[in-house]
Amino acid sequence: MLTINTERFLSLMTAQAQIGKTAEGGVSRPALSLPDIEVRAWFEAEIKARRLAYQVDGAGNQITRLPCASPDAKTLILASHLDSVPDGGRFDGALGVLVAFETMLTLKEAGVNLPFHVEAVNFTDEEGNLLGLFGSRAMTGAITPEALCAPRGGREQLLEGFARVGITDASVLGAKRSMDDIMGYLEVHIEQGTRLTDSGNDIGVVTSIVGIRSFELTFKGRAGHAGTTPMDKRQDAFRAAARFADQAHRAILDNFSPGVVNFGTIQVKPGAFNVIPDTAILGMEFRHGDLDTFNHMQQTLLALAEKVAESLNVTVTADALGDIRPSPMSDYFVDTVEKATESLNLKSTRLMSFAGHDAQSFSGLVDNVIYFVPSVNGVSHHPEELTTDEDCINAANVMLHAVLQLAQQTSP
Amino acid sequence: MLTINTERFLSLMTAQAQIGKTAEGGVSRPALSLPDIEVRAWFEAEIKARRLAYQVDGAGNQITRLPCASPDAKTLILASHLDSVPDGGRFDGALGVLVAFETMLTLKEAGVNLPFHVEAVNFTDEEGNLLGLFGSRAMTGAITPEALCAPRGGREQLLEGFARVGITDASVLGAKRSMDDIMGYLEVHIEQGTRLTDSGNDIGVVTSIVGIRSFELTFKGRAGHAGTTPMDKRQDAFRAAARFADQAHRAILDNFSPGVVNFGTIQVKPGAFNVIPDTAILGMEFRHGDLDTFNHMQQTLLALAEKVAESLNVTVTADALGDIRPSPMSDYFVDTVEKATESLNLKSTRLMSFAGHDAQSFSGLVDNVIYFVPSVNGVSHHPEELTTDEDCINAANVMLHAVLQLAQQTSP
Repeated sequence: MLTINTERFLSLMTAQAQIGKTAEGGVSRPALSLPDIEVRAWFEAEIKARRLAYQVDGAGNQITRLPCASPDAKTLILASHLDSVPDGGRFDGALGVLVAFETMLTLKEAGVNLPFHVEAVNFTDEEGNLLGLFGSRAMTGAITPEALCAPRGGREQLLEGFARVGITDASVLGAKRSMDDIMGYLEVHIEQGTRLTDSGNDIGVVTSIVGIRSFELTFKGRAGHAGTTPMDKRQDAFRAAARFADQAHRAILDNFSPGVVNFGTIQVKPGAFNVIPDTAILGMEFRHGDLDTFNHMQQTLLALAEKVAESLNVTVTADALGDIRPSPMSDYFVDTVEKATESLNLKSTRLMSFAGHDAQSFSGLVDNVIYFVPSVNGVSHHPEELTTDEDCINAANVMLHAVLQLAQQTSP
Repeated sequence: MLTINTERFLSLMTAQAQIGKTAEGGVSRPALSLPDIEVRAWFEAEIKARRLAYQVDGAGNQITRLPCASPDAKTLILASHLDSVPDGGRFDGALGVLVAFETMLTLKEAGVNLPFHVEAVNFTDEEGNLLGLFGSRAMTGAITPEALCAPRGGREQLLEGFARVGITDASVLGAKRSMDDIMGYLEVHIEQGTRLTDSGNDIGVVTSIVGIRSFELTFKGRAGHAGTTPMDKRQDAFRAAARFADQAHRAILDNFSPGVVNFGTIQVKPGAFNVIPDTAILGMEFRHGDLDTFNHMQQTLLALAEKVAESLNVTVTADALGDIRPSPMSDYFVDTVEKATESLNLKSTRLMSFAGHDAQSFSGLVDNVIYFVPSVNGVSHHPEELTTDEDCINAANVMLHAVLQLAQQTSP
């Protein structure tokens, strides 16, 4: 039975973790920051050292290609991302890219005749330092000129990153590929949770990916002297933001489980110890897998913000920054990964993904699926993020055999 | 009856308000920032244009002096500050400095023979951009080398400001004056509240100034993926800070009124939409006029922070950044201001000050008092801060007649 080259694969995993390495043992490679540029250069060199075709598209996606005998065949994409959140871990994204790469190397060495071309891709900015799911959305034509004008990380940072890889708004919009040429999309990722470990499974096959919406909530009150303004006469913007954030946690936990909400950023102005804040700008992100519930969740959160603001005599405005809808995976590819898992005598379960992934950009366009391998203690977006060598190897062998399954099932 | 030169005085008030002027009509002159340097240059020029002695001490305090006939006489200090909070108003501090200056100009022109020297002083950094009550504490010897090492605005900003006025740690520590040479201290300030207006009084004579303590509270949790970490398994540092801030407001309002607490700064890390915050650094400042209650208040706040942190599975550490004790004013000077007010047919009341003022640096060392004139709507530390021309003029005439009262009461 064909398996991947374990030693080569693990040494690639070790090598990438050295780039953008943090003191705590994770990596910090926000998209198109200098450490991300460095890991991209490393990946390019690894590809070229193996004499594989290398190409960067208009969105900065790094693509290597294993062509099959028939030039008119479609292409199967295996992909993930090498960028990370600030101070993140060394498996999130990187595992998927190197599994894709190792799968391609194994297929090439084994001289397998495939009825489709295979590409291994490192997508630009999955994590959202610039825009989020950037490279995969550019490839599927889902990036709008408007989105490029108001990216969540700020326009200046976007342009700075673009300059580093020589891309432009125009090239990004031109990176769209015809989905007629693509036969499907496969990705593996760490679970970033404990459901696999808790249920004793090796592989989690995702049936749908949750939607993600982000808002910037601006609470506006009135600045005032922090000594002479009596407590009951204040219009404290920060207090309103704080109370809302606390109550929103409760509301989601009580009424929308397993939906989630996060407040990851806040800015308070004018920002002095002795001045009552007149402005608090709160970053809110929430997720759910079912569209109706997702919409209801948004309604509930925004109404709560209004209610809390009113009760503290301040105002609030909500600016939508991002909206990614729930994305179902294709039954065909879910089945395929389950068969591959079975053929390797591994145990799998089906689940929903609470994290966004590049796989969702392909939903409804071509067959697609993402599957998970266990995260130790469910830790992720953190230096202690860990997936065991055994699970990393499983990730790669399942990918290899999913491709082989698809080859069997595809008429040449 | 001697009165100040209204026209001159009001035009000085108008002139200072042009410097560091904000679009909203206030001023933004954080201590030793460029706009503060500009207002200091303006004040120096105004002093020199009137051929008065001008001096800058080792703490950057600007001093002009009207000497009396007897060189061995003591000195009466009239003072306040020209610095402001960021985006503050144009009366807070500036009124007191220009009342002091106008009083001196009137005394000089009238050729009044005083049994003491008079100084009008602009103290450096009353508001706390660097350290708070900086100039007056330097003059009374209350600044320690330790305080200079860990200023609340950061050491770098302190040194940057120092360089702009040519002072150093050593010169600050050398700015201490012998209190034996000083006969007393007088200051006028806007009320920054509505008690005078509410009670129909022109002048509020302060009997004591509240203590002010500031802390930096660092909540530490665990970063994690904002999608995949279930809501009930999070260790969200920001949520703890938010809940604590909200509950602290309630606790102070319910149990320590009229004591006050403010949360004017917060920093959340790592600071991304899709990462659960592992760190939240919250700036806390609280005030009370009675030392025992003040201590009890601190205990309550810190215990509440601990309790909230524990309930959300995070930790909290509290770093004390500043500690100013409640400061009683001297009965003698309180009486003196009341007599001056009466002699002008104005109505006065006694009250406590919930704001810190340079006057408190002199408590227990020499006779001292600060008195207030009304703030329209009690607004302060805000561009809409306003005191009517009439009240500004009252402020100055009361100062003039308090000095004349003291002259009468002082044996030559």
